[in-house]
Amino acid sequence: MRDVAILGVGMTKFGELWDRSFRELGIEAGFQALVDAKLSSKDLGALYLGNMASGSLIEQEHIAPLLVDYAGLSGHHLPAIRVEAGGASGAVALHQGYLAVASGAYDFVVVGGAEKLTDVPDVTANRITGATADQEWESVFGATLPGLWALMARRHMYDFGTTREQLAQVPVHMHEMGSRNPNAHYRNKITLEQVLSAGPVAEPLGVFDCAPLSDGAAAVVLGPLDRARKFTDTPVQIRASVVTSDTMALHHRTSFTRLDSTIVAAKRAFAQARRRLTDVNVAEIHDAYSISALLALEDIGFSEKGAAGRELAEGKFALGGTPTVNSSGGLKAQGRPFGAVGVAQAVEIVRQLRGEAKERQVSGAQLGLAHDVGGTGATSVVHLFERAN
Amino acid sequence: MRDVAILGVGMTKFGELWDRSFRELGIEAGFQALVDAKLSSKDLGALYLGNMASGSLIEQEHIAPLLVDYAGLSGHHLPAIRVEAGGASGAVALHQGYLAVASGAYDFVVVGGAEKLTDVPDVTANRITGATADQEWESVFGATLPGLWALMARRHMYDFGTTREQLAQVPVHMHEMGSRNPNAHYRNKITLEQVLSAGPVAEPLGVFDCAPLSDGAAAVVLGPLDRARKFTDTPVQIRASVVTSDTMALHHRTSFTRLDSTIVAAKRAFAQARRRLTDVNVAEIHDAYSISALLALEDIGFSEKGAAGRELAEGKFALGGTPTVNSSGGLKAQGRPFGAVGVAQAVEIVRQLRGEAKERQVSGAQLGLAHDVGGTGATSVVHLFERAN
Repeated sequence: MRDVAILGVGMTKFGELWDRSFRELGIEAGFQALVDAKLSSKDLGALYLGNMASGSLIEQEHIAPLLVDYAGLSGHHLPAIRVEAGGASGAVALHQGYLAVASGAYDFVVVGGAEKLTDVPDVTANRITGATADQEWESVFGATLPGLWALMARRHMYDFGTTREQLAQVPVHMHEMGSRNPNAHYRNKITLEQVLSAGPVAEPLGVFDCAPLSDGAAAVVLGPLDRARKFTDTPVQIRASVVTSDTMALHHRTSFTRLDSTIVAAKRAFAQARRRLTDVNVAEIHDAYSISALLALEDIGFSEKGAAGRELAEGKFALGGTPTVNSSGGLKAQGRPFGAVGVAQAVEIVRQLRGEAKERQVSGAQLGLAHDVGGTGATSVVHLFERAN
Repeated sequence: MRDVAILGVGMTKFGELWDRSFRELGIEAGFQALVDAKLSSKDLGALYLGNMASGSLIEQEHIAPLLVDYAGLSGHHLPAIRVEAGGASGAVALHQGYLAVASGAYDFVVVGGAEKLTDVPDVTANRITGATADQEWESVFGATLPGLWALMARRHMYDFGTTREQLAQVPVHMHEMGSRNPNAHYRNKITLEQVLSAGPVAEPLGVFDCAPLSDGAAAVVLGPLDRARKFTDTPVQIRASVVTSDTMALHHRTSFTRLDSTIVAAKRAFAQARRRLTDVNVAEIHDAYSISALLALEDIGFSEKGAAGRELAEGKFALGGTPTVNSSGGLKAQGRPFGAVGVAQAVEIVRQLRGEAKERQVSGAQLGLAHDVGGTGATSVVHLFERAN
């Protein structure tokens, strides 16, 4: 397999973008990444697109050729392929783009992620977000996605003494980070008191413990590492790309306080990269709900099991921490356009490794990790990125 | 890149399978393919799943890990990835499985295609089938998928003198083939008169000119060719795997009587395989509508432009023809469970190349082609399969 590098990155602002369509968002991110890579569209071999639910959301399937079309590139007859894995769709699309270049089948590939959530009134309806859990055994009985994560939170509190206040520190952390990110959906800082006094969504999770529904798109351009220097002085190598699965329904798991898919993905990723956990300087993790972030920190291994709530509250993962976690603001503050999230995580890590993250820059960042989850963990994805010296 | 072989195949009956769920169908096809390959589930490296519209059809996204789960394989934490490209979803999933093995990232991969269409009353609604055309510029104005193909038929008749009777020979041909296929949705033969006297769907296309809406699933197991003999005496090599795109909307194309995506895909596939068109013994082509089959025959190159209607009516593509076309019965008679179609085409070709196609066997078949289309041609896929000697 060939070594694969990220040559260019792009992303739109995330947020409630009432005046912008799905296709506009996808194209803006894609062209930004192409320009950043100093590539011409005719150099492209393929496009991969991560998207969760365009059929339900905008009544449009077949969206990968749609974006190629509206970008004016149909004349090249590029392979244009959509990948779906719930909220992890973007990260899984990146895996496909990685394999496409690593295989030698394509030299330069755009991987995009895009989602337009605010065009329908009932996006929180179980038929959309609940469709990434087990429809027949969970959603149909009224279990919502935040409801399922709330069960995990309750059990984590019971087993490890995690407190409501520790959970509430997660969004405080994310908004602090997001305040430095011009693309973030939310740039306001919030206080512990605000989180604790917000109305409940699924107790113990309140309004501020749940990432927002956002519109947005992100894209990266991939190419063979051995040709990367031609395009950029700061190529970033994809050292590992791992996708794993687990049962759809929570009740089939042996534990509610860990995601085995994440544990296995992280382990495989560090083995693939031949790097250690302690080498990671910056990480973007899945924080769709406050509890999601704590499980991720523990399952990846940044915290011992049960210790993430305390360690996050103590500031271990703040800017310059070990590692810095979600400098972008994460899903909570940067935003959560489902299929775009996994690609946006890669964009943030690349900006950190290149030293282009401005007021949220982690100095000397060399190794970055991105972690994304679909549903309640039926899919996990871990990527490791390293600045090529 | 490593050479890739198909080691096992499986498929369910196609049809209106009221008593069977999406997950049951997917699992049956997958296990058949595994058993056929003499592989154990623990040998598997990944699963790819082609599916067009599960979100709209069964309110379930994230269906690749769902099938792994219900197959009882979650403990392996396999990558489980859904691919969507309208009606070509299955063929595009096969492309991804091919790249996954060719890259060296995975040794043995299951590629499945599955769709459950009969659980909703309004599947022909434009929000589902129309979602594979350009929603904002075609479907929203009332242009249906058969309506768009009917425009192509009208223009083909105008430009080349193709007759209504020649179009009507397409379903007659497909039902003749389907009558020999125990898995086919329709096994009854039909006459030219029946086709011509059936009610209109979108003139000139009548009820019999449109493939049915079917439930069903198909699966293949892929592995490295150099290890294929360990599992089978008759490995089938994937000699070429090509995906292409074109504009979503018909009105952006330079011609209504050809699919450039198919022309380019076929050309690239023969170049990749270093084989000639005249080497093909058996072909499965996209015949969602009668006109789709004529365009495919011409765009791949089996007929000169404008001649396919006449040549098909003359029997050029009958059993033992040059080549034999849609021995399975095609989308019209074998059935059209969107995401399963592309994989079912591969299953049929493998059975032909292995000499296992029973009463529809083409003797001495060595090279087979599969061609699938999404929407009105925004995606085309061409695969070439060869019996490894």
